Amino acid sequence: MRIVLGLEYDGASFCGWQSQPAGCSIQDALEIALSKIANSNTRVTTAGRTDAGVHATYQVVHFDTLVQRPLNAWVRGVNALLPSSIAVLWASELSDNFHARYSAKERCYFYLLLNHPVRAALYHGKVGWFHLPLNIEKMREAAQFLLGEHDFSTFRASECQAKSPVRNVTKLEIIQQGDIITFEIRANGFLQHMVRNIIGSLVYVGKENYPPNWIEEILKERDRAFAAPTFSAAGLYLGGINYDPEWKLPGFIEPPFTAVLPRMSRGK
Amino acid sequence: MRIVLGLEYDGASFCGWQSQPAGCSIQDALEIALSKIANSNTRVTTAGRTDAGVHATYQVVHFDTLVQRPLNAWVRGVNALLPSSIAVLWASELSDNFHARYSAKERCYFYLLLNHPVRAALYHGKVGWFHLPLNIEKMREAAQFLLGEHDFSTFRASECQAKSPVRNVTKLEIIQQGDIITFEIRANGFLQHMVRNIIGSLVYVGKENYPPNWIEEILKERDRAFAAPTFSAAGLYLGGINYDPEWKLPGFIEPPFTAVLPRMSRGK
Repeated sequence: MRIVLGLEYDGASFCGWQSQPAGCSIQDALEIALSKIANSNTRVTTAGRTDAGVHATYQVVHFDTLVQRPLNAWVRGVNALLPSSIAVLWASELSDNFHARYSAKERCYFYLLLNHPVRAALYHGKVGWFHLPLNIEKMREAAQFLLGEHDFSTFRASECQAKSPVRNVTKLEIIQQGDIITFEIRANGFLQHMVRNIIGSLVYVGKENYPPNWIEEILKERDRAFAAPTFSAAGLYLGGINYDPEWKLPGFIEPPFTAVLPRMSRGK
Repeated sequence: MRIVLGLEYDGASFCGWQSQPAGCSIQDALEIALSKIANSNTRVTTAGRTDAGVHATYQVVHFDTLVQRPLNAWVRGVNALLPSSIAVLWASELSDNFHARYSAKERCYFYLLLNHPVRAALYHGKVGWFHLPLNIEKMREAAQFLLGEHDFSTFRASECQAKSPVRNVTKLEIIQQGDIITFEIRANGFLQHMVRNIIGSLVYVGKENYPPNWIEEILKERDRAFAAPTFSAAGLYLGGINYDPEWKLPGFIEPPFTAVLPRMSRGK
């Protein structure tokens, strides 16, 4: 039978999602725990691999197993065996027609950027940082050029293995709350480093190195050399995967987030 | 001259605020960095010591030095020497009449409680956790009994060294946002473990072990044996110190927080 899991993790202490010989990945830790509960070697398929240092508030995986376990064993049992920085949030049993990756219709990422003269301490590893003031309105204007279906080669890592560089960006929203700027970006899929390369380039616009339509220009170039350097992984969160409602998986809230952490004015 | 600093820190990797022979405290790390910038042994006085694992978004310290440095050296210079989990947010030069501890009129703490069947992963070490549903309204009702001036011996650690167990609680607000319950508590001062003992007891009321007026009853007992066990340090944040406006220190915002971190519905 096919079991589907929802996951949350702090990516800071892992070498990324994908299994590595050194066993340092989130996938490695999860498969060790699942294999113990299943009493046999268990491999998972993910909705999307995340890089080293990238977090997830809503990651989805599936795996096949012959053992019968109450669904709760795949949550509480597995959580008891996982490191404290990974948790299974829910489990569901679905037919073999469901595939964590191929059934996904939309992915949602968040990027949290601390915009303050002083680097993060409490949120070290959980937010990106930019120390100079940013023009949010100009960043929002620039973001509009990225919406829709485009060839995103300009924002694609050289080692990206995707067959096509074409993706359809369905949302790119920028919200400022105190010192924190949150970027929400949704697409049918993402190329390697695509979000971080977009953030880096939007920051170039925000600090007024380039006008908003510079983003339109570099997008047309379809060449990574034109965009800004890849921004830090620390502020990036895989925030949700949308599947067809027929699968009845727990959704992520629309607007899909908001937890309030205490944060003082830093007395700018 | 007397220099005053505002600090932010992640308490998870330290043995608490107060200097220890092992050098594992926040004070130790700060004094090492300050002593390098001052080029002489520099000791600080804090507004309030925090326990191991307790965070701060707005801690205040002062120190005296004979060296002349631009104020920015006490921020950027010191930050370059501090571990990534501590940051100086601002620096101010004040007269010797200012004292980080004795001039403080009010302290503000926050407690973040994850109320969800599954433990924290992304916010491990940053939130307390309770897995069963809590009745927020009953907790709010109970909190009213703690407002005002009382003998807080019931909520005082046995090793607490304060001369008097009397404190004046000026605010105790409970806010629920998704899976996160935030407690904001303000007083002229706090006894050791006072906030964590209060949280533990309010959780007893929230899970309906006791009615709200149980808090009134145990408060009257003035005996630690009557309250609930000390709740986890992980969710506790020193969130602000109020001084007389004459000192012109950067204040903390009212309402004194809100940074939004992405947080999905965990699909309860």
